[in-house]
Amino acid sequence: MAEMKIERIKGFRDQYPEDMGPRKHLIGIAEQRAERFGFQKVDVPSLESLELYRIKSGDELVSQTYSFVDRGGREVTMIPEFTPSVVRMLAARKDIPRPVRWYGTPKLWRYEEPQAGRLREHIQFNADIFGVDSPEADSEVIGLAASILDSLGLGGEYEIRISNREITEKILKGIGIKDTRRAFAVIDRFRKVTKEEFLKDIGSAGASENNAEKLLAFLSEQFEIEELKDRLGNLVQGIIWDGDAIERIIYTGRLIKTYTPSAVKYDLSIVRGLSYYTGIVFEAFDIKGEFRSILGGGRYNNLAGLLSDQDIPAVGFGMGDAVIELLLKRVGKWVPEPVGDSYYIASLLKERKEYAMVVANSVRKYRRAVADISGRGLSAQMKAAASSGCSHAVIIGEKERSGEEVTVRDMETGEQQTVSLKSFLESLE
Amino acid sequence: MAEMKIERIKGFRDQYPEDMGPRKHLIGIAEQRAERFGFQKVDVPSLESLELYRIKSGDELVSQTYSFVDRGGREVTMIPEFTPSVVRMLAARKDIPRPVRWYGTPKLWRYEEPQAGRLREHIQFNADIFGVDSPEADSEVIGLAASILDSLGLGGEYEIRISNREITEKILKGIGIKDTRRAFAVIDRFRKVTKEEFLKDIGSAGASENNAEKLLAFLSEQFEIEELKDRLGNLVQGIIWDGDAIERIIYTGRLIKTYTPSAVKYDLSIVRGLSYYTGIVFEAFDIKGEFRSILGGGRYNNLAGLLSDQDIPAVGFGMGDAVIELLLKRVGKWVPEPVGDSYYIASLLKERKEYAMVVANSVRKYRRAVADISGRGLSAQMKAAASSGCSHAVIIGEKERSGEEVTVRDMETGEQQTVSLKSFLESLE
Repeated sequence: MAEMKIERIKGFRDQYPEDMGPRKHLIGIAEQRAERFGFQKVDVPSLESLELYRIKSGDELVSQTYSFVDRGGREVTMIPEFTPSVVRMLAARKDIPRPVRWYGTPKLWRYEEPQAGRLREHIQFNADIFGVDSPEADSEVIGLAASILDSLGLGGEYEIRISNREITEKILKGIGIKDTRRAFAVIDRFRKVTKEEFLKDIGSAGASENNAEKLLAFLSEQFEIEELKDRLGNLVQGIIWDGDAIERIIYTGRLIKTYTPSAVKYDLSIVRGLSYYTGIVFEAFDIKGEFRSILGGGRYNNLAGLLSDQDIPAVGFGMGDAVIELLLKRVGKWVPEPVGDSYYIASLLKERKEYAMVVANSVRKYRRAVADISGRGLSAQMKAAASSGCSHAVIIGEKERSGEEVTVRDMETGEQQTVSLKSFLESLE
Repeated sequence: MAEMKIERIKGFRDQYPEDMGPRKHLIGIAEQRAERFGFQKVDVPSLESLELYRIKSGDELVSQTYSFVDRGGREVTMIPEFTPSVVRMLAARKDIPRPVRWYGTPKLWRYEEPQAGRLREHIQFNADIFGVDSPEADSEVIGLAASILDSLGLGGEYEIRISNREITEKILKGIGIKDTRRAFAVIDRFRKVTKEEFLKDIGSAGASENNAEKLLAFLSEQFEIEELKDRLGNLVQGIIWDGDAIERIIYTGRLIKTYTPSAVKYDLSIVRGLSYYTGIVFEAFDIKGEFRSILGGGRYNNLAGLLSDQDIPAVGFGMGDAVIELLLKRVGKWVPEPVGDSYYIASLLKERKEYAMVVANSVRKYRRAVADISGRGLSAQMKAAASSGCSHAVIIGEKERSGEEVTVRDMETGEQQTVSLKSFLESLE
């Protein structure tokens, strides 16, 4: 280890090429799928008034932000989320025809204790559809999420779990719970506590012992969305389900299956925090259950009304780059974009050395070319060529320059031949 | 204008699709050219210890940063520059074979009064070559800069101006100036002051009246690099130029011309600040002289030694996204990536509505498809299709679904025909 006078701050990442290449590939795939789905890229300020988050989330979130008073006396924060800024942007532009499909790849910051899959700075891919409340909009967003994971080669490695906050609310009331906000908080912690703790907590929220046991059973398994009606009947007898929310989520499940062959399950334990979401909520999990959720989102129809004078229905999701990195590494797919053939330009010229750069720049019209800029001897240059990962070396000596030729070596087989520059370039076209 | 409860912070940008599309194109071109030149992408933390910048630049820069004390009591800053972090990263990894070519596209922040082409937050494309001090390395970096501008369609709209800090130092000494640091500061302000002020200031730094006038003349014009020797002879008689620095920059100029047909001029007024740079320095300017420099950089061989126990020669440049945006807008090239044919999927289905999504998702294997998710009537959907910018609409009614067909309308000509889904998809392949 080198001796450094300055250290990196804990929870932040130095991203060397071996990780940045795969990360660029990951974000590139997400962007490409979003563009194919008709989403347009937007970006937001990295600093916002702290007030934006106080309005949205209250002081709990605020205590976990990088907030400070700037030189102009403003209370500002490095953004912990993308969506509030995007909603602020959209609400300010009534001229933009809705619905709109927007995505972004911001960096986000939280002052938290770093742990696996959770950093103080991360990149988050976000996509939202604003201006329409329909099961098709919900499924476009969830379908995009699945399409990104499938395009990354993760088919069969993940499943999507959905729930609906309205249905959960109705269930809680149906089993006699009055303080549903408190019960939501208990369900939100379901996977972090023991069964005994859960039963005690949900009991304190107003559930009878029998209902608490039934709820525990319901929360403990994921099932096909089509089974929802039967299971609800077993859980809560005597309620009349008006059916709309249930029919809608069953239809949404059917729609999602047109996007991906992946499993889509109902999971009542999906809550996604206490406020904010108003309808469908969803997360994607690796099937081995080793990591936190890979991505998550849902419908939030009330946020614009909090931040502006407009109501704008919205559905979206966010995918941080840390958990998916762990999953892609586990399955051996944390890899950069394929680069194709690439050329290491080795020069032995002592005069009119520009010829090597003429060759490099001609190759760059078609392919990657790394020009050796060191003036080292041939064997040192060939060693560098080998460690560069280039598929070919192009060797240029006095003979090649005077004849307008190049000597091309296949780095794998070691075979080499001298050809005219012209025909070499034609072979790249 | 909508009524907003929260405003954006001054000097920061909301990036709507109409600007984000061209910006994505700009950054994409820069990244693609860098990859072709064999540069690898890296990224750095957005927060660093303030000390990193104190060591590099002293308190003047620090007073223009977004710095604060974090919840853990650390003095931190939102990074105002990319290079110090990259040098910190490289110095920490002696195992990486050098030279290395690294690039990045960080967001950077400065607490300054916003003005045209200068914002409190901007994106900067950066590229550096570490580990070798050669004219070829210098020209690879300057050549990459030119290649990016050329690939953006800016050929003929800009010129590159170069100078060399060692040569400038020698000139200043040659005309009798002892406090060359102070004289550098005067030259750095050359374009911001009147001739009279310049003459007075350079006189205070120790130049005779005659030499001050000669220096003014030298600074006032850009010329072909080949003319450097003659011009130096006229300016400073009696100095023996050992010639290395001059031969090198003339050769570098010749190399740069293998990358770009653009003009490459010598410009003694290019200084680029007071510390940091040790050899060649360069900037690109729009030929009309309307804006600040589009990009700039140079050789800085001493930075690693300040931050670590190693000396690592380095050359690089940075290009912010604000000035080039102004230039691209002026020449009508602030445009997004071409998107090709794209399809607006309009659905009139009342049942088994999934078919519309099956079509959308099939199209997305090959092209962009925007699915209408509103459940509106046909004329409203066609109006949305027209304003979406899609080249075609795909209309799906009960007849199309039952026959596994689609009706495809050319949005420009209005012509439409109904074909089997299978043959439609084959036409996209």
